[in-house]
Order: sequence, then structure tokens, then C-alpha cells
Amino acid sequence: MKKHDLNFHIASFEANLNDLSVFTDDAHDGWTREVLTEPYKASRDFIRRKMEDAGLTTRFDASGNIVGHLPGMASTRGQTLKPIMTGSHTDTVRNGGRFDGVVGVLGAIETVSALREAGVTLEHDLYVIDFLGEEPNRFGVACVGSRSMSGRLTRDHLLLADESSEKLGDAITQYGLDADGALCNAWKPNSLHAYIELHIEQGPSMERENKQIGVVTAIAGIDRLLAKFIGEPDHAGATPMNSRHDALVAAAESVLAVERTGCGAPIHGVATTGNIESWPGSFNVVPNETHIQAEIRSTDAQWLHGAKREIAQRIGEIAEQRGVSQFIEWLTSQDPVPASTALQDNIATTAEELGYTWMSVPSGAGHDAAHMAHLGPMGMIFVPSVDGHSHRPDEYTSTDDIAVGIHTLAETLIRLDKLEQVGA
Amino acid sequence: MKKHDLNFHIASFEANLNDLSVFTDDAHDGWTREVLTEPYKASRDFIRRKMEDAGLTTRFDASGNIVGHLPGMASTRGQTLKPIMTGSHTDTVRNGGRFDGVVGVLGAIETVSALREAGVTLEHDLYVIDFLGEEPNRFGVACVGSRSMSGRLTRDHLLLADESSEKLGDAITQYGLDADGALCNAWKPNSLHAYIELHIEQGPSMERENKQIGVVTAIAGIDRLLAKFIGEPDHAGATPMNSRHDALVAAAESVLAVERTGCGAPIHGVATTGNIESWPGSFNVVPNETHIQAEIRSTDAQWLHGAKREIAQRIGEIAEQRGVSQFIEWLTSQDPVPASTALQDNIATTAEELGYTWMSVPSGAGHDAAHMAHLGPMGMIFVPSVDGHSHRPDEYTSTDDIAVGIHTLAETLIRLDKLEQVGA
Repeated sequence: MKKHDLNFHIASFEANLNDLSVFTDDAHDGWTREVLTEPYKASRDFIRRKMEDAGLTTRFDASGNIVGHLPGMASTRGQTLKPIMTGSHTDTVRNGGRFDGVVGVLGAIETVSALREAGVTLEHDLYVIDFLGEEPNRFGVACVGSRSMSGRLTRDHLLLADESSEKLGDAITQYGLDADGALCNAWKPNSLHAYIELHIEQGPSMERENKQIGVVTAIAGIDRLLAKFIGEPDHAGATPMNSRHDALVAAAESVLAVERTGCGAPIHGVATTGNIESWPGSFNVVPNETHIQAEIRSTDAQWLHGAKREIAQRIGEIAEQRGVSQFIEWLTSQDPVPASTALQDNIATTAEELGYTWMSVPSGAGHDAAHMAHLGPMGMIFVPSVDGHSHRPDEYTSTDDIAVGIHTLAETLIRLDKLEQVGA
Repeated sequence: MKKHDLNFHIASFEANLNDLSVFTDDAHDGWTREVLTEPYKASRDFIRRKMEDAGLTTRFDASGNIVGHLPGMASTRGQTLKPIMTGSHTDTVRNGGRFDGVVGVLGAIETVSALREAGVTLEHDLYVIDFLGEEPNRFGVACVGSRSMSGRLTRDHLLLADESSEKLGDAITQYGLDADGALCNAWKPNSLHAYIELHIEQGPSMERENKQIGVVTAIAGIDRLLAKFIGEPDHAGATPMNSRHDALVAAAESVLAVERTGCGAPIHGVATTGNIESWPGSFNVVPNETHIQAEIRSTDAQWLHGAKREIAQRIGEIAEQRGVSQFIEWLTSQDPVPASTALQDNIATTAEELGYTWMSVPSGAGHDAAHMAHLGPMGMIFVPSVDGHSHRPDEYTSTDDIAVGIHTLAETLIRLDKLEQVGA
């Protein structure tokens, strides 16, 4: 059932996806288009042109977001309604894929084309945003553009430095943007009628359940930690097993403790040790210093809090038993962000009316949507990821699956447009 | 009881130790004097001069060992007796200490001085050797000089390259030695009356037992392995715990399995994971490739063989359970080298007659003695290491403890000199 006879030119979406894929950094494998690089800069003129082709007026805002605008009937009449916003990002992680973020931006552009072609004009203004740098960058900051737009980018963020001691603020200026301007680019809280983002799932749940539409319940909170273990660099041949203060075995046991905490999550919770480094790194010296970097994520704030305490305690116990010192530094701490339940209902009802199968899913990954939730009711539509793979070159979602997502996005926008208020 | 009225000038030993410590590489912490470096080269002229001062005639042999020679009474009479040899090394590991190896070389020089001063002339020729490069170097080869002298340095060793692709053979030539000559520098098997080496223990056993002299029973064999784990680089937020193929947790479990194998050794056995590396090393990606480098050492060849099989099997099981691939490469494989039991008895009897406390100890560390055992009956005398520390700047053995070791070495040499044959 195509409720409004919307005619999607999915071949045009596919062509745009392929054309965008050309803007990649040859220095890396996969589809690499990291924020603040030349390939990224070049790609954004392409995106802007595609927005214009679809009938959006466009501008780069102070933080480098591409802001596409389609005026609604109300504003034409001089009436003021809160705008609806959709969008995502087009930067990728190093060695990443072609779908993460891109589907939400190109899908929104295709939606605008289809609405226009079908002669459907919304009451509310519609904004389509390609947010600057959603992926974690070399300064350790993700969601630069949506942080800025939601008033959550701070001067502290701009002072964060990469390995070569370059600061984020300087890199932004170098790229041609106004770093100070990015600090004053915030939209007002509750200024949006709704924010809705189409995205790939990046996990295996929908494929496993054979569902076409994922209605996101919440975006997981994240706590990240750096744990350092300090032991004694004794001779690996001459030091008996019971006389050692081995930092690496303490770290290894902690890696398994982090995993065990994640496996103990009742609903959605994951715990990952993403990196480990050990010194001095010789065969014949008992390692005396080992660092691990780990994170826990959950849509359940209570569990997240408990898991954090549990991991800290286990690491303390392990280190004490093994006679090594341990220091834990908690780095990031982001609370889970629930999606608007009203918006979830609207997405699910739309999918059902269109005859698509759907399921509720948590988002383990972070998204621009988590920041935009500060500006109004937030919702996300997921489409399935083949084998659950993401952030790697073989990340894939079929064009048919994406078409279902775009259709659901378009019809949900029309549905939301008719509501006086969406609700939290 | 000073059986032969040997008069040790321990202040002179101490002065030599301090003077030698000046030859260190400022680019690193601790006492760094790595083989084939300028500080090492400079230090060897100092050692050679000290040997000459003690009354030894000296030469550098084809592989860069300093060979000090003291003719015995027999050769003065035109009679042929197999020579006695003692010595050790004066290179250090990066950030190493001042005692490992050095005690055996300077101790032997002090022994020769004392014998000479006391008018004691041995029947057998005595050789004092400062072996080239005993510590593992950047080409992964330890005991370069003693390997060469025992005929165990091969062209394959010379072709081993460091991280910058420089080959050991080229580095030897660059240093001013004849790499080809080092391949033809072997003494004949069974050409020595005895080889005896004074060394610090590098472990805590003697200090713990409060013994002055360690009579080494055997030098541990070593098996080294590189294990690679290959999983899937999935999104750390979006991939449920039960859908992961996490290379790092498999490696962490293997680190603990290596440790458990070491702890299960009945007599002397240790197992150490010396290094771990993991990729891609981001917070938000499940690690898909992790490598560990580990070693097992024991004086018991049977246990070593079983431990090797046990570790390979456990790593295989762990990887299979976790759905990751594993590849094990066995690198070094050295059999344990037993000390001559006759020589052990001679050292123990000497210590007892001198009124020193002694114990039998295995050597977990490798030594030039392991190679020299191919040329005749081999024995080692250990003196205690404070806190068992070694290969680190705070490596320490008191001058009093060293004096006991030198005294025992000197009297053992005199005892061995009187034997027609030492025995295996």
C-alpha cells in the first residue's frame, strides 16, 4: 500500500550512494571518509548539490552541518509551527562501510524528491541535515555537528588534542570553519516538532528476527574506562610463578571480567575491551605495565551504573590478588537516551499500515539523534545490516531493505506533520 | 678459611664495576650497553685493559669475544692439558642493571689477580672470556659470542633482520668484525677441562633461603611461541555479547592458560606471556586480531615438551569455543642444558670447605655456559640477587655477596686444576 502514491526512484538513491562512495581516502582500506579530511570536504559539496536538486534550499551552518530546508504550508501562510527535522551523517570511520549514516542522508533527500513529485506539501517546515563528523574522530569527539546544534559542544571539546598535539578547535579552523561559531550554533530546546533519523541497525537482531523495520526504543548510554596495571618487570626465566607481579595477567583477567559483566546484562547491555597495550613487551621480561581501554553500553541507566561499579570492584580485587597496582580513569560517561514513545508508536503504526514487518530494537551504537533529542521528540528507524556487520568495508544493507526504510520514513513524516504535538 | 691465602682486592673489583658503568647509552634509562653499539665498543677496550693489568695476554677473536689467556705450568713444560675456561658477558639489556654478566667477567679478572698475587700457578692454561653479546639483541639472537665459539652460530643467524631490515651479519661487519670469520671460530667439542661461570641468580630463591652460593643444576630450555587470534571487527555497541568473535577475549583467556601451565610445573618451570597486541584498538570495535608472544622455560625437558602441547591444545580449545581462528608459530626451541654433576659437586664441596652456605638452584635464565657446555664439563656459581630483580636498573648484589662468589670461583678453579678429568 503506497498511501500517498509516493514514487521512490530507488535507482537514483543507488546512483547517489555509488557516486558518494568515490569520495574516499586512498591512504586507507575500505570506504574511508573521516571528518576534517579533503575527501570529506569534497563529498559535502556533492551532498549539498543533491539536496538542491531535490528542491531543498541549503546552507552550511556555523559548525559545518549542511542544513537543507523545505518550507511548509504554515510558514507560507505566515503561521509559525515547530519544524520537523530528519538527517544523519556522511562521514565514515577508517576502513568503514558505505551505509552507516549515508542511508539516513540520501534517504531523506530521496524522501523530499518523492514528496515533491507526488505534490505532497507538509504543513511544517522540514529540515534535512547532514551533520558534521558523527563518527569518533582522532580527538576522541563524536557527533561534532549535532553536539553543536543541540548546544552540547563546549570549549573543552575544542581543546582536546590528537596524538600529534593538534587541537580539535585548530583542526576545525584549518578545515575552513569557525570553531568559535560552532560554540554558538545551538537551536533552542524543544524547538522541534520531531526529529527522526533513518539508519542501518549495525547489529544482527533484525536480520535474525527477519524484520524489515526497527523501531528504536533508546540509544544506549556509554561509560568508558582506561585501567592501568603496574607490576614488576622481573626476569621471565628466573622469577618463579609465585613471586611475580605480572601486570599482563591481571589485565587479561580483567578483560574477562569486563566480558562477564556484559554477558550478565538482563536486557540490552554490552561490555567490550577495545584495546590492550603492555610493556616492556619482551619475551624474557614479566610485563610490568599493561593498559586496557574498555566500555560498557546499555539502554538501561540503572544497569549501566551497577555494571560500572561491578567492573571497578572486580579490577580492584584482581589487582590485589596478583600484587599489582591498578588505576582506573573513567573517560566518557553518557546517559542512555530514550526515544519518544509517541514517535515510536507513529513509526510502528506507519510500518504496519504499509504492510512491513517491524520490531522494537535498542540502539547499541551512538547517533546524532541522541543529541537532537534535546531539541524535541526523537525517533529512529532502523533497516537491517547483513550479518550485523558495521564499521567495516563489507557493511551492507540491500537496496530493497533501504527502500522499505525510506518509504516508512516518508509516510511517518506525513503522519507526524498532521499531529498538533508529538509527545515525549 | 682462605685455603690458599688468596687476597681479594674487592675494592678494586668495585672500582672496576663503577668504571664500567660509565659506558652506557644515554638514549635509554638504567644501565644500557647493548651489543654492537658505541658504548659497548668503548667498554670492551676497558675490559681488555683490565685483563692485561691482571696478567692475562688478550686478543679479540673472530667473533669479537675478548679472550684472556694465562698459561699453565703444564704448557710451560711443553705438556698438553685441556684448558680451564671461565667468563661471562658485559653487554646489558636496554634499561638493564650493572651486575648481570659483569660479575662473572670482573670476578674472573679479580680471581686471576688474586691467584697471581698469592703465587698460585695452575697446571692447566686458564682462559677468561668476555663473550660478545649474550643478551637478546634486536635481531633476536642471544649469546652471539658463545654460540660462535661453540660452533653454534650459523649463516641463518647472520641473515636475521631487525625492524629496520638490517641483518645481524651486516651489523657485525659495520661494528668492525668479520661476520664470516665468526662462523669459523669454533673450538673443538670436548676441548675444555672445565667451563665455570660466576653469575647473579636473577631470581629470589637464594635470598629467600638465605644462601650464599647457588650451585646451578641446569640451564632451562626455552620454547617460544607467537599465537595469532583472528575474529570479527563488529560494532562494540550494536553487537550482542553472544554474537561476537572477539579476538582479544580469546587472547586474554589464553594468557591465563599460559600462566596456569607455568603454575602447574612440578619442579622448575615458568610460563610467561611477554607481549600482547590487539587491533584495531578502538573503544567501539570488537577486536578482530590479537597476537600474544609467550614462552615456557624449564630445566626438565619432559615437562617442557608436555607444557608446549598443553598450551597449544588450550589455545585451540579457547579459540574454538569463542568462534575465532588461531594460528600458533613456535619460534625458539632450546633444550635444557644440565650442568656437569661432577662440577656441581666440586663447587658445593669448595663452598662448604670455605664455610659458605650453598644450595642447588636451577637457572631459569639462559647463559653463555649453555653453549660452552658443548666444549666440556660446565658448571655455574650463582650469587644472590636482592629481591630477585634483574634486567632492570635496580638489579643489585652486595659486594660482600660477590666477594663470596669470587672466592668460591677461585678455590673451585684450583680444585678443578688438580683433577685429571672433571667428568660430565
